[in-house]
Amino acid sequence: MLSKNNIKLIKSLEHKKFRIQHQLFVVEGLKSVQEFLKSDFQLEKIYMVDANFKIDTADKIKIVTVDELKKISFLKTPHQVLAVFKIPSVQKANSNNLILALDSINDPGNLGTIIRLCDWFGVEQLICSKDTVDCFNPKVVQSTMGSLTRVKLFYTDLKEFISNYKGEVFGSFMDGNNIYKIELPKKGIIIMGNEANGISAEIEKLITQKISIPAFGNHQETESLNVATATAIVLSEFKRR
Amino acid sequence: MLSKNNIKLIKSLEHKKFRIQHQLFVVEGLKSVQEFLKSDFQLEKIYMVDANFKIDTADKIKIVTVDELKKISFLKTPHQVLAVFKIPSVQKANSNNLILALDSINDPGNLGTIIRLCDWFGVEQLICSKDTVDCFNPKVVQSTMGSLTRVKLFYTDLKEFISNYKGEVFGSFMDGNNIYKIELPKKGIIIMGNEANGISAEIEKLITQKISIPAFGNHQETESLNVATATAIVLSEFKRR
Repeated sequence: MLSKNNIKLIKSLEHKKFRIQHQLFVVEGLKSVQEFLKSDFQLEKIYMVDANFKIDTADKIKIVTVDELKKISFLKTPHQVLAVFKIPSVQKANSNNLILALDSINDPGNLGTIIRLCDWFGVEQLICSKDTVDCFNPKVVQSTMGSLTRVKLFYTDLKEFISNYKGEVFGSFMDGNNIYKIELPKKGIIIMGNEANGISAEIEKLITQKISIPAFGNHQETESLNVATATAIVLSEFKRR
Repeated sequence: MLSKNNIKLIKSLEHKKFRIQHQLFVVEGLKSVQEFLKSDFQLEKIYMVDANFKIDTADKIKIVTVDELKKISFLKTPHQVLAVFKIPSVQKANSNNLILALDSINDPGNLGTIIRLCDWFGVEQLICSKDTVDCFNPKVVQSTMGSLTRVKLFYTDLKEFISNYKGEVFGSFMDGNNIYKIELPKKGIIIMGNEANGISAEIEKLITQKISIPAFGNHQETESLNVATATAIVLSEFKRR
């Protein structure tokens, strides 16, 4: 049986404050949990409805009922298994390749999609401004589909990081140079900005090349692209060459 | 004051059955409503908290309180205005250009993002299989940000439609030809498949060219791309040339 305190602790991990306090986060679903188990992330405890899931450290397994799983899950329809992992120390890659940097991304689904894109396009290092949504937010973890185990994220003062970077700094804007027509190097930082406000003024100053995805429709009213789909197109362009 | 029946009618429009019965759908938010008002869509009624919104047909305006708006809104935080529009007759474009076709897309957010991408990339006609999520679903309307007024959607028997199409039929698969390396024409149909199962077997038979976005990461475990981000990359590739 799950204790009330146990349920309370797990549910508290929805909030960044408690994730930091306990240094723990939640992963749900068979496939995602398996990917985290295979990775360097350290398991704290795994809760599952059936015992048909093998792991080396049997003492970390707790069999629960479907109703108990519902009590600790962040999903509408819980997926058989929920695992609590330890938050690792800073994930810094010694990447000398392309780096993606996010300036104040708020939406967990967008961050999750972007992490998945980094995994797909082999971008090993993702730099996030300190006010970007936390990557251990359950919605982010859920939407990364395990990619979080393969992409290194690092939250930092973006202005300082970029100021110290020696190389080209690309930023995605509505009025930048046509990304299809300019030269794109194999190294550099690409910055994507906030959903509503784009890249902040203080970061904009540090950009050496503004880039833009041109619209092909005839309609001036067309909204800008969502930041996750824009990131998909930008990474595709950098990598295809 | 809003009558109970009024509230009940609007709330019922969350469900496809009632949208079909009443031939009505809901649009929320100032910007989206303005875009629909500018379009060929016909307004049924507009509910707003303030009267600072001008439209020609004043008799279609109903001023409501914030609490009343909350009762009819599908959003956690209602946006000042909610409008009910008439569902138009079949939206068929006489497009001789690139056509996008969706085979059983389930997620409203994905369909919304794809409509927005069609708008951006000038794809005038979007064909949907009959089991694709309804484009007048409030979540789809919300996520299109007005693009639904500029892209023509048409729900049909996809197999029949493609069988009658004279031209190249592209389909996105995990094991198709590298999209960066093949020739892509200005005309043709591009088919994107269901979130979990991809393109169905009966549609696959009709495809003349399988295409694929290659992964650049070193990890075999990497999940396929989300269908909306894959669509972003595919449309970008077709249009950039």
